[in-house]
Amino acid sequence: MTYIEKISSPEDIKNLSIEELTSLASEIREAVLNRDSLIGGHVGPNLGIVEVAIALHKVFNSPTDKIVWDVSHQCYPHKILTGRKEGFLTEAGMQEISGYTNPDESKHDHFKIGHTSTAVSLATGLAKARDLKNETHNIIAVLGDGSLSGGEALEGLSNAAVLGSNILIILNDNEMSIAENHGGLYHNLRTLRSTKGTASDNLFKALGFNYHYVEEGNDLATLLNVFKKVKDCTSPTLLHIRTLKGKGYPFAEENKERWHWSVPFNLQDGTPKISFEGENFNDITYNFLNQKIKKDPSVVIVNAGTPGVFGLTEERRTALGKNYVDVGIAEEHGVAFTSALAKGGCKPVFMVMSSFVQRTYDQLSQDLALNKNPAVILVAWGGISGADMTHLCTFDIPLISNIPNLVYLAPQTVEEYLDMLNWGLEQQEHPVVIRMPKSVIHNPNFKSFDYEKLNTYDVQQSGQKVAIISAGSFYSLGKEVASLLEEKGIHPTLINPRYLTGLDVDLLEKLKENHSLVLTLEDGELDGGFGEKISRFYASTPIKTLCFGAFKEFTDRVPLEELYKKYHLTPEQIVQDALNIL
Amino acid sequence: MTYIEKISSPEDIKNLSIEELTSLASEIREAVLNRDSLIGGHVGPNLGIVEVAIALHKVFNSPTDKIVWDVSHQCYPHKILTGRKEGFLTEAGMQEISGYTNPDESKHDHFKIGHTSTAVSLATGLAKARDLKNETHNIIAVLGDGSLSGGEALEGLSNAAVLGSNILIILNDNEMSIAENHGGLYHNLRTLRSTKGTASDNLFKALGFNYHYVEEGNDLATLLNVFKKVKDCTSPTLLHIRTLKGKGYPFAEENKERWHWSVPFNLQDGTPKISFEGENFNDITYNFLNQKIKKDPSVVIVNAGTPGVFGLTEERRTALGKNYVDVGIAEEHGVAFTSALAKGGCKPVFMVMSSFVQRTYDQLSQDLALNKNPAVILVAWGGISGADMTHLCTFDIPLISNIPNLVYLAPQTVEEYLDMLNWGLEQQEHPVVIRMPKSVIHNPNFKSFDYEKLNTYDVQQSGQKVAIISAGSFYSLGKEVASLLEEKGIHPTLINPRYLTGLDVDLLEKLKENHSLVLTLEDGELDGGFGEKISRFYASTPIKTLCFGAFKEFTDRVPLEELYKKYHLTPEQIVQDALNIL
Repeated sequence: MTYIEKISSPEDIKNLSIEELTSLASEIREAVLNRDSLIGGHVGPNLGIVEVAIALHKVFNSPTDKIVWDVSHQCYPHKILTGRKEGFLTEAGMQEISGYTNPDESKHDHFKIGHTSTAVSLATGLAKARDLKNETHNIIAVLGDGSLSGGEALEGLSNAAVLGSNILIILNDNEMSIAENHGGLYHNLRTLRSTKGTASDNLFKALGFNYHYVEEGNDLATLLNVFKKVKDCTSPTLLHIRTLKGKGYPFAEENKERWHWSVPFNLQDGTPKISFEGENFNDITYNFLNQKIKKDPSVVIVNAGTPGVFGLTEERRTALGKNYVDVGIAEEHGVAFTSALAKGGCKPVFMVMSSFVQRTYDQLSQDLALNKNPAVILVAWGGISGADMTHLCTFDIPLISNIPNLVYLAPQTVEEYLDMLNWGLEQQEHPVVIRMPKSVIHNPNFKSFDYEKLNTYDVQQSGQKVAIISAGSFYSLGKEVASLLEEKGIHPTLINPRYLTGLDVDLLEKLKENHSLVLTLEDGELDGGFGEKISRFYASTPIKTLCFGAFKEFTDRVPLEELYKKYHLTPEQIVQDALNIL
Repeated sequence: MTYIEKISSPEDIKNLSIEELTSLASEIREAVLNRDSLIGGHVGPNLGIVEVAIALHKVFNSPTDKIVWDVSHQCYPHKILTGRKEGFLTEAGMQEISGYTNPDESKHDHFKIGHTSTAVSLATGLAKARDLKNETHNIIAVLGDGSLSGGEALEGLSNAAVLGSNILIILNDNEMSIAENHGGLYHNLRTLRSTKGTASDNLFKALGFNYHYVEEGNDLATLLNVFKKVKDCTSPTLLHIRTLKGKGYPFAEENKERWHWSVPFNLQDGTPKISFEGENFNDITYNFLNQKIKKDPSVVIVNAGTPGVFGLTEERRTALGKNYVDVGIAEEHGVAFTSALAKGGCKPVFMVMSSFVQRTYDQLSQDLALNKNPAVILVAWGGISGADMTHLCTFDIPLISNIPNLVYLAPQTVEEYLDMLNWGLEQQEHPVVIRMPKSVIHNPNFKSFDYEKLNTYDVQQSGQKVAIISAGSFYSLGKEVASLLEEKGIHPTLINPRYLTGLDVDLLEKLKENHSLVLTLEDGELDGGFGEKISRFYASTPIKTLCFGAFKEFTDRVPLEELYKKYHLTPEQIVQDALNIL
């Protein structure tokens, strides 16, 4: 019987010897790789943190002592040690257990976490609560070096440092963000590593932390020793622990960026089981911008620590040279920096995933929109998905489209996308946000448009009775709805609104003449979204509207088909709902 | 003739001697105080920065060299030196010139800025643009120590430090935020000040900056000397300059918090010309929470560097003791910390101004709403106002009300406000946001409500034909509209929705029976707001809706009456619009 089979809670490792724990560490790595290879997930972060997780649970008393895992990309070993090993050993178990911490799964998890840089602030809150309630347990935040560059983490560290009581920050330094690190903070981490923590100008000491450097962060004996020493510390303490990302899986040790997260793969050779072939918007975008840059060195790509989301491989980043800037996981800075690049006469493109653009509302509003600088922002993955609740991309339309001065464009085809991107780069009047489409659809008959004619919708088919306004990635859905309506004897109008930020008032007025129902289709949350603007426009007229999109809710790994059905987003449901009104 | 009268651009000070510049400094202080005493504005920050502004414009060549003023609370001397002295000398001029930097006013301003902690990121963008265009001018960011705690500033510093070319960060350390500073960062600034910049563990050196400490930040000769040395520096350089906030006006030197910003005042004795008497929501809130805390030490107030907005005077902060936490200007941390306090069993209240809650969208969504922790957030000043474009409070309803799981309440009267606040603190199920009302209105007949019955609206008057749904601070407006309609022979239904985050579907269904028009009134942006949810609900029925609120726009010091007229928010306009539909 393996050790891992005997573990149902941290209690079960309390009496294991170093040798036994070392064996357990190997088994945990196998279990992590088992899950990742079968269903995909975070590889490198989990392999690197195994010894830290074991030592924490051996020395501290979870859940009385509380461990908060930043971004929780590295929570698998913790999950295995806290009663959730089935999530890593059996395929059925894997469906039950998510890849992120979740208090609904276990009392050893304290927060649902999937965005970076939050653990220090959350831990500081738990610590202050403990103090106000005169309790005495340990509070521990585990933070990767990649998360350190996020403003929330830095705000948190400054506040944690003055807590005046027990809090332990574990800085898990594996010398990597998702890709390589960027910023002066990493200059300091390098210096600290190279001096084994003895360098002057120590960022953490500067803030007021007790600081300890641990070179051997994958050595159990060392970690147990250190944790015993800092347990029950009475003032804010930071352990700077050096670990090896991907440890124990040679491919992952070798190529840390590739193995931060992986689709299912063959354990033997590390080859992915799913291949992505054919055209995709990342290649299309890179090729277009790279060509632009060759002609115009003022074009510059900005990214906040997630180059992989945009297919910006190391090779491509190198090719882009000084026209590519990775600001680290620092989306707020990313937007402000991009706004100023535009102000300074450059043509910047900030690339950000829908879920993470949430970090930048105030920068979009104040640094960018208020200043009307002609920067371009590309939002990836926007839309309804079967993602984990921490990585939903359903909210960017309500977030962005209600900010004055921004032009939020939703292209439908490759040609329209590039036309919009080109316009965004070359115009001088507006901050432009573009929602990257999902499916690669070509329109050989596409005609370039002057998007300066703000809020001019594209009538793709003129009809009567019913008008379908189908935005962005719901292009095909709109077409299918139109076809189905034709079958029912209705020849509808089909409209591509192009803009998510405004109404084509003339067109909407004109529709009144021979339409009685307008359908809006948007790939995102209905509340605060695009369709509601249309419904308000017609709200005092005889024209009826029906808005289709996502409900206001956090969904968690619900299959897309199921969500579509729930939201009445199949063509059949939409047509039936329309017919019910007519 | 005074020196100030001769200044139309920075060119006009290039040939002045130190003595002449010193006289000019006095005249600038007089001009600052002239404006502030007559129309109100930022006092201490502007008085403290006079010599820095003069020396910058003497040594550097603005606008070729570009100066970015963080939060721009301290931009008055810069404005005086760049052709805008009339804004400080004559009452007519004061109306023309705003209290913040604005490129529409002058080519010496590069951004519209009013939120803190943005200057470093913006300057880094300008510097990178310069480098990509092979230009060679200086880029300078002036940042107050209070702004340093904001995540965007820290992200910016980490990125500025690795720019690899010219950028000059001036840290204007006056040992104050708006109130006193909070956080480990200030521990480091204190140490650096007390060692005249020689202490080890220097935060800025740790990031990789060339660092210089300047003790005499109000001495022109010293500043000229230092600026000449760092001009055209070829790598990121940080000047830590100690200045005296409020310098030259004894009252402001003495009581820095009172004199950060002031309403118009009598120069002689510093007494305000406008007095605020009578009941206000700050006193009401403080008294309620202070009583709560006496009985329940788990109640805790959290604020992000703006205690004055909530009337939390030094005396009150002291009285609250450990049950008051100022996290510094760090709203993101504030929300995450508050969420964790609730998770840890406390009853926290995070107090934040509508304009600044914009910093926290992702924390509201991920750290708070996703986790459903029962924290309370009080949003102040929410609503349409005649404020500067950088401080508008019009957007919090679209921002907050479309995030799942949050309960956003809009009380109308003192009694309802306290009832909601009490419920928010005592319940365990929901993150609760409360929009503080503006006018103090009492309702002696108020009956306590169980807000756990989510989205149950309050029918204040039953009528027919027209229903008015009037949210929060538009309580009186709703009543006036109802009265006017009565005069026109219509007896309307009047509804207080209580909740901005959801619909009372049963009630809205019932209204269909004997109403043909529903009016929604909300004190905020219409796009993405409350009314649109109602209009979508009725969009496919014969019921018509008319939504009243603010347009999607940044307004700039437009008188409230003018905005109300523009937005059709007078009772007469609303009734006329309603009659036009009926």
